[in-house]
Amino acid sequence: MSAQAPHNTLLIPGPIEFDDAVLQSMSHYAESHVAPGFVKVFGETLTLVRKLFQSTNPAAQPFIISGSGTLGWDLVSANLIERGENALVLNTGYFGDSFGQCLETYGANVTHLKAPIGDRSSIEEVEQALKEKPYKLITLTHVDTSTGVLSDVKGVAQLVRRVSPDTLVIVDGVCSVGSEEIAFDEWDLDAVVTASQKAIGCPPGLSIVMTSGRAIQAAQSRKTPPGAYYASIANWLPIMQNYENNKPSYFATPPTQLVHALHTTLRQITADVPGRFAAHTEVSDKVKAAAAELGLKQLASRPECQAHGMTAMYLPEGLSPPDVLPGLLKRGVIFAAGLHKEIATKYIRFGHMGVSVTDPKRGDVDKALAALKEALAEAKQAKGL
Amino acid sequence: MSAQAPHNTLLIPGPIEFDDAVLQSMSHYAESHVAPGFVKVFGETLTLVRKLFQSTNPAAQPFIISGSGTLGWDLVSANLIERGENALVLNTGYFGDSFGQCLETYGANVTHLKAPIGDRSSIEEVEQALKEKPYKLITLTHVDTSTGVLSDVKGVAQLVRRVSPDTLVIVDGVCSVGSEEIAFDEWDLDAVVTASQKAIGCPPGLSIVMTSGRAIQAAQSRKTPPGAYYASIANWLPIMQNYENNKPSYFATPPTQLVHALHTTLRQITADVPGRFAAHTEVSDKVKAAAAELGLKQLASRPECQAHGMTAMYLPEGLSPPDVLPGLLKRGVIFAAGLHKEIATKYIRFGHMGVSVTDPKRGDVDKALAALKEALAEAKQAKGL
Repeated sequence: MSAQAPHNTLLIPGPIEFDDAVLQSMSHYAESHVAPGFVKVFGETLTLVRKLFQSTNPAAQPFIISGSGTLGWDLVSANLIERGENALVLNTGYFGDSFGQCLETYGANVTHLKAPIGDRSSIEEVEQALKEKPYKLITLTHVDTSTGVLSDVKGVAQLVRRVSPDTLVIVDGVCSVGSEEIAFDEWDLDAVVTASQKAIGCPPGLSIVMTSGRAIQAAQSRKTPPGAYYASIANWLPIMQNYENNKPSYFATPPTQLVHALHTTLRQITADVPGRFAAHTEVSDKVKAAAAELGLKQLASRPECQAHGMTAMYLPEGLSPPDVLPGLLKRGVIFAAGLHKEIATKYIRFGHMGVSVTDPKRGDVDKALAALKEALAEAKQAKGL
Repeated sequence: MSAQAPHNTLLIPGPIEFDDAVLQSMSHYAESHVAPGFVKVFGETLTLVRKLFQSTNPAAQPFIISGSGTLGWDLVSANLIERGENALVLNTGYFGDSFGQCLETYGANVTHLKAPIGDRSSIEEVEQALKEKPYKLITLTHVDTSTGVLSDVKGVAQLVRRVSPDTLVIVDGVCSVGSEEIAFDEWDLDAVVTASQKAIGCPPGLSIVMTSGRAIQAAQSRKTPPGAYYASIANWLPIMQNYENNKPSYFATPPTQLVHALHTTLRQITADVPGRFAAHTEVSDKVKAAAAELGLKQLASRPECQAHGMTAMYLPEGLSPPDVLPGLLKRGVIFAAGLHKEIATKYIRFGHMGVSVTDPKRGDVDKALAALKEALAEAKQAKGL
């Protein structure tokens, strides 16, 4: 039995349900951020981030900073690109728009390569765009939480190395890390920005960024100072290196309790990283098949661009989220409404990540699929559809 | 009996010991950041921040953002001052230096008015400095965690309104909010930057900033766009206003569990704000008298510039922190070493804030004073002093 108070099952694309052990480790008594016990846990957690990204290259550098996933965009935008340099944003939804705004805040000259809703640009289109200007960096949203569209990170990274080898490859992995495969070194990525509260299975409050040696080099060889103070790689780099070398260090107080929670969930995840991705794929296939059986069309148009940790589904004509979400809630299940501005009233989002996927004894996904079927039937009936 | 695992008592100038109820409320099950239950708690927490600051002016605006206290400096520096404008930093230690660096990162032209170690500049000196240039803002560290020096926030604010009324008065209250009196409206302050983990008694991970209508006006009438994205007032203002009006809203995912913890501790604190300040003064007087009896001189030279939530004490000649801190730890008490670069090896810091002060049944302070006496005697004997 769970140690948590009874509650509706949270199946939105983050935050997600927690394992009991994660919550328990978070309610840790007060600790100094420079005490040996915490230094060890923080250092180990940084090393576990490397494992999560299947990275063994010592030049790569993880960062764990108090903040939301959004802070990672500032870390990229204030350190890895300078005022007037070009950034290419592969835009597959809401989060591409916002990452672009963040880059512009720090002076980057941003070009959006916008895919139609539910789709992603082809490798050929990206190649074409890359040839138009020299780009300091290219960003892609691995899974856009607003649409459930999966980007081809490996394919784009290969393309960049072939046609524009100095361009930094930046992945927004907020909604993918922990549920979609990422081989950081092998794919030769430069930064993956993520957060604690999605497929990583930790409460929100940690910005997690993995960077390559090439990215660190870019930050260190800037012609102008970094554009931010709290989000400055120069300020955090020695701190992260010291903690991982078991030395206390101070720039700003880390959120000690959340770091304990992250340590616990990363130990669970890294026990079998490939197995975790396989479990997410299997459950995703099941969810998508069940949705199709209910006649629900996915936003993500083609199977190769469908995320494995969430499913965004159009509702039948005549229904909107407020017709269906209360019926789900009545059955103990929480899904999310639409988020993409142009179509928000037409679809719902089901997050299937973390313990809800890896611990089938919980029965979360089966419960959700049964509730979805009933809630849909009820809503159609109420509307006379 | 406490629900927390047995542990040494954390008496550093933050993080501090937690009340059981605070830790318990933090281990809240997974919740959507836009679900009605959480929206209500977040909205109430914002309103409780107003009470904490004894503020009733509806033009004032609290912000609660995932991040450490340092993030508040970016919020000030990226929004309330523009490139090339002047900032005056009343510098009483390590944190004045750092706030100055943050302001410079965003292009401010920073002048430090540096007080001797352990002291603060006089009102006359500040007046003199204010007359030299037009300053967009002035910052003061209410309590510098590195030295325990207390600034005269009320006096400086009065002075600014008299001699340079448009200058924004910015208080770094990371180590003061919750233990030192602050009357935000009455003193006519423009921003107080703080964090969750010191006298507020919550785990670290929340940046808390209170702003005046004048500050919001300054942010909204900038000639240039804000200098940061995550730390942009324009991005957060509607979110905070919506939550306080009980409407869900999204810019970046708030740290839901930490917000529950903050809600709990602020409800406790705001039940009697003046009583809390009185308790901190009383315990501080007791600690300072006991330190004097042990022959320990405070860093903060004069009583009027001594903080009430911490005491920084010079060790006797011939002793350094590693001679004394292990003896304290052996007795179950954790103090902090020195932090001010020039004298770090000569002093120790005792944080007396939050439940260790307001819940005398815990016996934390008496235990610490007894341990200090014994550890000092032991250290002197070992060194033949």
